[in-house]
This record gives sequence, structure tokens and C-alpha cells, in this order.
Amino acid sequence: MRVEIWSDIACPWCYIGKARFEKGLAAFAHRDDVEVVHRSFELDPNRAKGDTGPVLEMLAKKYGRTLEEARAMEAHVASNAHAEGLGYRTEGRDHGNTFDIHRLLHLARDRGLQNELLDLAYRANFAEERSVFDPETLVTLGVEAGLDEAEVRAVLADDSAYAEAVREDEREAAELGANGVPFFVLDRRYGISGGQPAEVFTQALEQAWQGRVLQPVGGDAAVCDPDGSCEVPGA
Amino acid sequence: MRVEIWSDIACPWCYIGKARFEKGLAAFAHRDDVEVVHRSFELDPNRAKGDTGPVLEMLAKKYGRTLEEARAMEAHVASNAHAEGLGYRTEGRDHGNTFDIHRLLHLARDRGLQNELLDLAYRANFAEERSVFDPETLVTLGVEAGLDEAEVRAVLADDSAYAEAVREDEREAAELGANGVPFFVLDRRYGISGGQPAEVFTQALEQAWQGRVLQPVGGDAAVCDPDGSCEVPGA
Repeated sequence: MRVEIWSDIACPWCYIGKARFEKGLAAFAHRDDVEVVHRSFELDPNRAKGDTGPVLEMLAKKYGRTLEEARAMEAHVASNAHAEGLGYRTEGRDHGNTFDIHRLLHLARDRGLQNELLDLAYRANFAEERSVFDPETLVTLGVEAGLDEAEVRAVLADDSAYAEAVREDEREAAELGANGVPFFVLDRRYGISGGQPAEVFTQALEQAWQGRVLQPVGGDAAVCDPDGSCEVPGA
Repeated sequence: MRVEIWSDIACPWCYIGKARFEKGLAAFAHRDDVEVVHRSFELDPNRAKGDTGPVLEMLAKKYGRTLEEARAMEAHVASNAHAEGLGYRTEGRDHGNTFDIHRLLHLARDRGLQNELLDLAYRANFAEERSVFDPETLVTLGVEAGLDEAEVRAVLADDSAYAEAVREDEREAAELGANGVPFFVLDRRYGISGGQPAEVFTQALEQAWQGRVLQPVGGDAAVCDPDGSCEVPGA
């Protein structure tokens, strides 16, 4: 079975939702038969690269609240993160454009290291004093994930590298009806929006597993079967 | 949309079916939104590596026919291949264990070169005087597909490299009810068995495209949306 998770590094509910999903997955009997793929979704795609600013000020401005109220909103998110055993800094975090980290996550997918980089990037952004909007930090995170440093630098230096892969993920999210993230898709059959409780993921996995019956299309046609014979119907 | 094709290099209907599928895909309006993945399926997994023998003799023995009758069976397959513009040698081909080429196809997938290697391997096996059961030929095919020679040799030298990926594909085929190949799966929703006519593939792609509606699971939960806000329902 295949689970695709659309998310953004800058999205706290994606960070928390990933932990909840993983808890739900751990309780699922067929967890070893589940392939998980990260898909790109930028919360702020039009923001210029390098244009970063404090999360608290962004929140206050967006919701027309005071900085104190924004701090309370962040504290609410932090308590949800802590409940999942995740670190969460309510002060000093920046917001910005996440295109480059999504491009690196596609490189990491090609190298079989996507989940490693994703976890490191979330932790850097939410729990540590490290900015995922700083190119050198991205290089360090890539190397910590197990990627080749020269390859990471080459991708970062070439804005077109994996750009189409990111855009394609975002087009697919729109086609599948995802208006926000995290957005979980099970075998392109079930859609789960938001950082749901772990049990919701377990139940959805069970439902998708039981519903894994393919609808046959087409009539009889020539096949080769495992004893090596190749039958042509009617021949 | 995602199409997974289970097949074996030693399977003539997989070779022909791939061409028919590609013709059907070319006639599909949303062809640029279709991702195609090759999945491993060995027709003769218990055969020892290096134990190869003439296809004609294998066919004659399996079906209790004379060599002349086996030749006629191959001629029938060849006429189907030719109708798709594919070369097909009815004499001199060998049959054997395809585990190593499947392992290489997984390496090629990781490097974004799977379709290139697959086409080269089919052509070598069915149309050319090249044996896909010979390790040096596999190295050459890998390099022709664009893979790094040292990496190809490393995979071939290590029997465990990508072995689990091949086995996992085969387990999934069994779970999905595939008893023979080629076996086409569209978005894990529709299954198409055998080398069907191109129009069957086009119709199935259209059907799967129209049916791409996700079933929602779970209640309201916190999401972050593209204007950067993160809403907690009821908060």
C-alpha cells in the first residue's frame, strides 16, 4: 500500500501530523507493506527566496492580533507538539519560502533518504536554532541525512533542479482537492486532511487495506504465467 | 495518475504489451500526468542463475510439442511483435533467470532511468543477438541506459542489492491477484491483465482518470492553508 503525504516544512500541523500518522501506522498490522512518500506543498510559494521574517509577527499581522495573542496561538500548537514528544520553539522561529528544501527532498527521495531529511528539516525548523531558509544549513541537513554534499550543493545552485517535481506535486495536490496541508492520500483512494489523531490514521489504513480490490478492465488477453508458459486466449 | 506494470524481461507479451500500452497512453489526453513504474515479476524464479537454455526447446518440452510446432508458436508471437513495430527473433533466444536484470531495473528507477533500461533489455532479449543472462551484457545495457558503470557492477556483484525490492514487488503482485504478466495497475484501483489492444488501455486510463475522486476519511482537523494560516477547528 502507498501513502502520499503532502506537507510543508513551514507547517506546524504537518510536523505534528507526521508524528501522529507514524503512531497510527505503528499500530497497523500491515505497516511493513506501507510505502510512504513525501509530496511537496508550499504554504507561501510567492514569497521571494531569502525574504524571511519572524513567525510571531507574521501570525499577529495575518490574524490581526497582538504579539501576545500570537504567542498564545503558538503555545497552543507547542502543547500539541509536546504531546507527541516533539520539541517546539515558540520564540525566534522564522517564516519564508520553502521551495529549495522541497527540491532537496526530491533529491533525497531519489537517494532513498527522503524521510531522514524530512525529519531533520522539521526538527531544525521547529525545535532547533537552525534556519531551513539558510542555504548552508540546508547543506548541513542534507549531509546529516546521508546525502552527498557536492550533489546537495549542485541542486541548490541550480534553481531548475527538481523544480518541475515540486510543481508537479503541487498540481496533483490541487487535482486531488487538497486546499491545505498536511494531506494524506492512501492508494489514491482515500484522502485525510489535517493532523488527525493517530487512531484515525490506523482506521483509515485498515479501511484502505481491506478495500484493496482491483476492478478488472479488458477481456482475455495473452499473458505469461510463472511456469513460463505464454497463453494466447483461444489459440 | 500512476500506472504500475508488472512484467518480466523474458515475457514476450510483456514486451508487446508495453508497446500497446504506450500506444494507448499516447492517445490519452492526460498522458503527461501519468507516472509509469515498472514492477518486478520473475517467470522462472527458481531457475539457477547461469542456467540458460534455448527458448524453442523449453517451449517444445513445456507444451509437449515438436521443435517445428514451437517455432510456429514463436512465429505467431513474432507477428504480433512486428505489428507493433518491434523486432523479434524466433531463433536463437535463450531462457533463464531474470533476477539480476530486475535488481538493475530497481537501481535504474532510483536513478530516473528505468524506462530506458527496460526498453534496452527487452530489445536485447527479443530483437538482438545479446543475452540478458550474461553479466557483461547487463553492464553494457546499464551503461547504454545512462547508469554509472561502477554502480551497475556493484549491484551485480552484491546479490542482496535491491533483492528485497524485487521480492516486495512480487509479493505485491500476488496480493493484487496477478497470476501472470504483463499486469497493469492504474492508481491501485483498476487491474488489466495481458497484452491488451491499445484502445483498452486508453479506455482504462480515461475511466481511471474520471474516477480519481478521493473518499474523505476523518473529521475536521488542524490544517495549514496556502495563505500561511493554520486553523484549528473550533479554536
